[in-house]
Amino acid sequence: MSDNNSRYVVGVDFGTLSGRAVVVRVDDGAEIGAAVHEYAHRVIEETLPGGGARLGPDWALQSPADWLEVMRVAVPEALAVAGVPASQVIGIGTDFTACTVLPATADGTPLCEMLPDRPHAWPKLWKHHAAQPHADRINAVAAERGEAWLPRYGGKISSEWQFAKGLQVLEEDPEAYDLAERWIEAADWIIWRLTGVETRNTCTAGYKGIYQDGAHPSEDFLAALNPGFTGFTAKLGGEPSPLGGLAGRLTAEASKLTGLPEGIAVAVGNVDAHVTAAAADAVGPGQMVAIMGTSTCHVMSSDTLAEVPGMCGVVRDGIVPGLWGYEAGQSAVGDIFAWFVETSVPASYTERAAELGVSVHEYLTSLAAEQKVGAHGLVALDWHNGNRSVLVDHNLSGVIVGQTLATRPEDVYRALIEATAFGARVIVETFEKAGVPVEEFVVAGGLLKNAFLMQIYADVLRRPLSVIGSDQGPALGSAIHAAVAAGAYSDIAEAAAAMGKRTAAAYLPDDARADAYDRLYAEYRRLHDHFADGELLHRLRAIRNEATA
Amino acid sequence: MSDNNSRYVVGVDFGTLSGRAVVVRVDDGAEIGAAVHEYAHRVIEETLPGGGARLGPDWALQSPADWLEVMRVAVPEALAVAGVPASQVIGIGTDFTACTVLPATADGTPLCEMLPDRPHAWPKLWKHHAAQPHADRINAVAAERGEAWLPRYGGKISSEWQFAKGLQVLEEDPEAYDLAERWIEAADWIIWRLTGVETRNTCTAGYKGIYQDGAHPSEDFLAALNPGFTGFTAKLGGEPSPLGGLAGRLTAEASKLTGLPEGIAVAVGNVDAHVTAAAADAVGPGQMVAIMGTSTCHVMSSDTLAEVPGMCGVVRDGIVPGLWGYEAGQSAVGDIFAWFVETSVPASYTERAAELGVSVHEYLTSLAAEQKVGAHGLVALDWHNGNRSVLVDHNLSGVIVGQTLATRPEDVYRALIEATAFGARVIVETFEKAGVPVEEFVVAGGLLKNAFLMQIYADVLRRPLSVIGSDQGPALGSAIHAAVAAGAYSDIAEAAAAMGKRTAAAYLPDDARADAYDRLYAEYRRLHDHFADGELLHRLRAIRNEATA
Repeated sequence: MSDNNSRYVVGVDFGTLSGRAVVVRVDDGAEIGAAVHEYAHRVIEETLPGGGARLGPDWALQSPADWLEVMRVAVPEALAVAGVPASQVIGIGTDFTACTVLPATADGTPLCEMLPDRPHAWPKLWKHHAAQPHADRINAVAAERGEAWLPRYGGKISSEWQFAKGLQVLEEDPEAYDLAERWIEAADWIIWRLTGVETRNTCTAGYKGIYQDGAHPSEDFLAALNPGFTGFTAKLGGEPSPLGGLAGRLTAEASKLTGLPEGIAVAVGNVDAHVTAAAADAVGPGQMVAIMGTSTCHVMSSDTLAEVPGMCGVVRDGIVPGLWGYEAGQSAVGDIFAWFVETSVPASYTERAAELGVSVHEYLTSLAAEQKVGAHGLVALDWHNGNRSVLVDHNLSGVIVGQTLATRPEDVYRALIEATAFGARVIVETFEKAGVPVEEFVVAGGLLKNAFLMQIYADVLRRPLSVIGSDQGPALGSAIHAAVAAGAYSDIAEAAAAMGKRTAAAYLPDDARADAYDRLYAEYRRLHDHFADGELLHRLRAIRNEATA
Repeated sequence: MSDNNSRYVVGVDFGTLSGRAVVVRVDDGAEIGAAVHEYAHRVIEETLPGGGARLGPDWALQSPADWLEVMRVAVPEALAVAGVPASQVIGIGTDFTACTVLPATADGTPLCEMLPDRPHAWPKLWKHHAAQPHADRINAVAAERGEAWLPRYGGKISSEWQFAKGLQVLEEDPEAYDLAERWIEAADWIIWRLTGVETRNTCTAGYKGIYQDGAHPSEDFLAALNPGFTGFTAKLGGEPSPLGGLAGRLTAEASKLTGLPEGIAVAVGNVDAHVTAAAADAVGPGQMVAIMGTSTCHVMSSDTLAEVPGMCGVVRDGIVPGLWGYEAGQSAVGDIFAWFVETSVPASYTERAAELGVSVHEYLTSLAAEQKVGAHGLVALDWHNGNRSVLVDHNLSGVIVGQTLATRPEDVYRALIEATAFGARVIVETFEKAGVPVEEFVVAGGLLKNAFLMQIYADVLRRPLSVIGSDQGPALGSAIHAAVAAGAYSDIAEAAAAMGKRTAAAYLPDDARADAYDRLYAEYRRLHDHFADGELLHRLRAIRNEATA
């Protein structure tokens, strides 16, 4: 409940399918009210809105109008639910999926409003993967030229990022490319709409825009990719703004849209995973926050700069100002379990789960939990959606070893959970081996609700797991950033300490199980290293692609 | 239908769960009538009949009384169905699972009739696997001593065979071992009951009893295993009798049991897989008969003696007199598909199959058949029940590689079918590489009914597939042996030519698909060779066994 004397901030989290607004008390981070609004167009994958052009394979677009609708609908609704008068709100912060990026004119008008029938005029969602050939060329040219920034991204940039997607537009729709005076993250575009001021945030500039040591890649490099690509960095805006900083003040128009007071603080844009560190009060050096959902994103600050093999990126001030921000990831985690439940669990199990009134996940978990470590005789590689860290190879695929005629669904389910835990351990070990200590492992995200899975992670990692105390981590994190931007706290760390929520050591490893997992992990590493070169898996992928072409 | 002038033979096939009798016309092999009788005790795996002792893991026993019931019930019923008067029957032949072996007194009384409460007094079914430690010692000692017979079994004898099972009895129940004056295959015991004459057939003596070049393993060798094991071979009977030979004449007692005329010919005992070669009219050199069901057994005669790596055995006169008989096998084939359908196919598929009025196997087949070769991106190792040939390692297990979040049940189903086809190709190539040509690949058994699977085998093997023309191959084969024993034909080949049934080149390979499969097979071989040393899979098995102990 609200009270008359408190100040509040609003955090808005823009996800893949919907946006969520949450109203948070500045003093203690209490989440007073929330509202979710689904995007009318969700993910645009087949044809453009209005029955327009068909999209190619691996395309994924979104509509800026859907994002504004979240502001128009969910923000006032959250305030109403909270019972908080708008007058008590002192700031707003937002976070977005990334790299979700769009072409715009110099005044911030999305190109798709001018050219609604041109696929390349629309925002490309993070999971638009049709720029893989462009990413491949960027990586090859960068490696050949020995670009200094390449090791900051584990040796490879992703097809999801700004340069690959931009190069795709240039080469497939040069006219749209020319009309796009700006190439801007949705995270920054929404701030522009709220403040009337164009800013670029340090987080996406660094992780998605290859902004390192004060500069984007050189014109020489761009020319080597395509002579027409020179000048691309001019579309990316000026010097990035610090996270937690004040991007500007809410305009009259944005006030009308959201119902929030004109002139309140608007925080610099940010990314869902990265703001979650603040929500978990885990922004100190060595606090690795794993946001575990369909996939897992690991973010961690450190005072050390190191080149960690296969990390997604290291960015100065990338999570909080003053520290190096690291990001790593697992391409599929919850997605693997969901795929398994959808495709590989027989009727007898789904019926039994229904009888018991539990989900199939819960039923499988209850069966798997009865087993001793290793009793299923299986080990799996969690590469069903490729491997983001530490191998950075989207063309890898899943492996499972040890099946017998006695293997049951709960055995495979447990082995898949363990595989993702082993994948997390590889990441932690890789950081530590590179000289970047991981002091605490903090879990956020939807998979938190599976206590059995959490215990497996604690046992496999052989360390206590801390857990976030909120189930709307990104929105809470954005609200914390809003409080900093509004001047209620001096910096993110102070705000996170007051408003973030973390239960330390919520899960403790069991020595005997950890010992048993050490043996299984050794087998996982052997499988991992055997298939890591991708030889066999790449050939299988090539055969598949030829057969389905 | 019968007629008054024809002569008939009866073939009886003793399977794992039931026995089948078939009445066959001697002139042309027409199958006139058949009857099946299920064993009352089926497979005894948990406790002895009558609520007796609990059995250990991997035990599997049977009851001799159940076998006699097949004779008492199914033989007269088959005659009745056929409308054939018993007076027109001139002989009976039988085949059995092997190695199914029992202890008996000197007059052929099963020891379990005297000691019904002693587990080791009962017949051990072929799939009794509790003698693995004994087999391991036999192999180690034989390898160390360089026993000449060892290479005849691909370098390893099986825990299923006579010596391993016998050594288990000696070491776990020495009293039962001492009382067992005979250690006899069920295949021979049933003949003893029918004729009153103890014989041993060349087939099981060679493949299961390590009878090579006129002798069993030496007393020295047995003493090296256990001093008490000397004299074991004396329990195994005298010189084996030739296949298709006359074991004796039906006794009055057996006539009363079966309703067949006293004095008719009774053929020497035999094994289900081996008699099937005659039923398929495929007893010539280089005709490999694959009996494809839950597992696959490959039998082939050749005029060449060679040591084929990992074959189950080569026995002089082991399928037909005058040729070397080879046996190889795949530990699980249909069992893998059945396991997959039982454990890994979701309700949406089983419901759709029910709507369409087809089995889940048929539904998955229809979906899988729409794919191009390699489109699923998968390759699997068919080792879910170990690998009988060519690796001879029961502690191997299944592997599947290439799964993505888009992998569907029909993809895995097809990949598993292909894996078994690749396993068959490894066997064929291993024979040919060892200098034993495979001229024709002839399929018998229950999997024949899946035309899609047959076509995959033709494409993977890149050769025409011939198919047997009977769905009761073993019983027909036994009937053919009965006709030879009765003197209706001069030898098995002549009888098989008249009475056996084979459609040559029923499935032809498609060049384009065969080319595509060559690429997938190359990946299968790489996986096969990588995991063949068993290092990783054995460690996983050991971890499993410790965890479940």
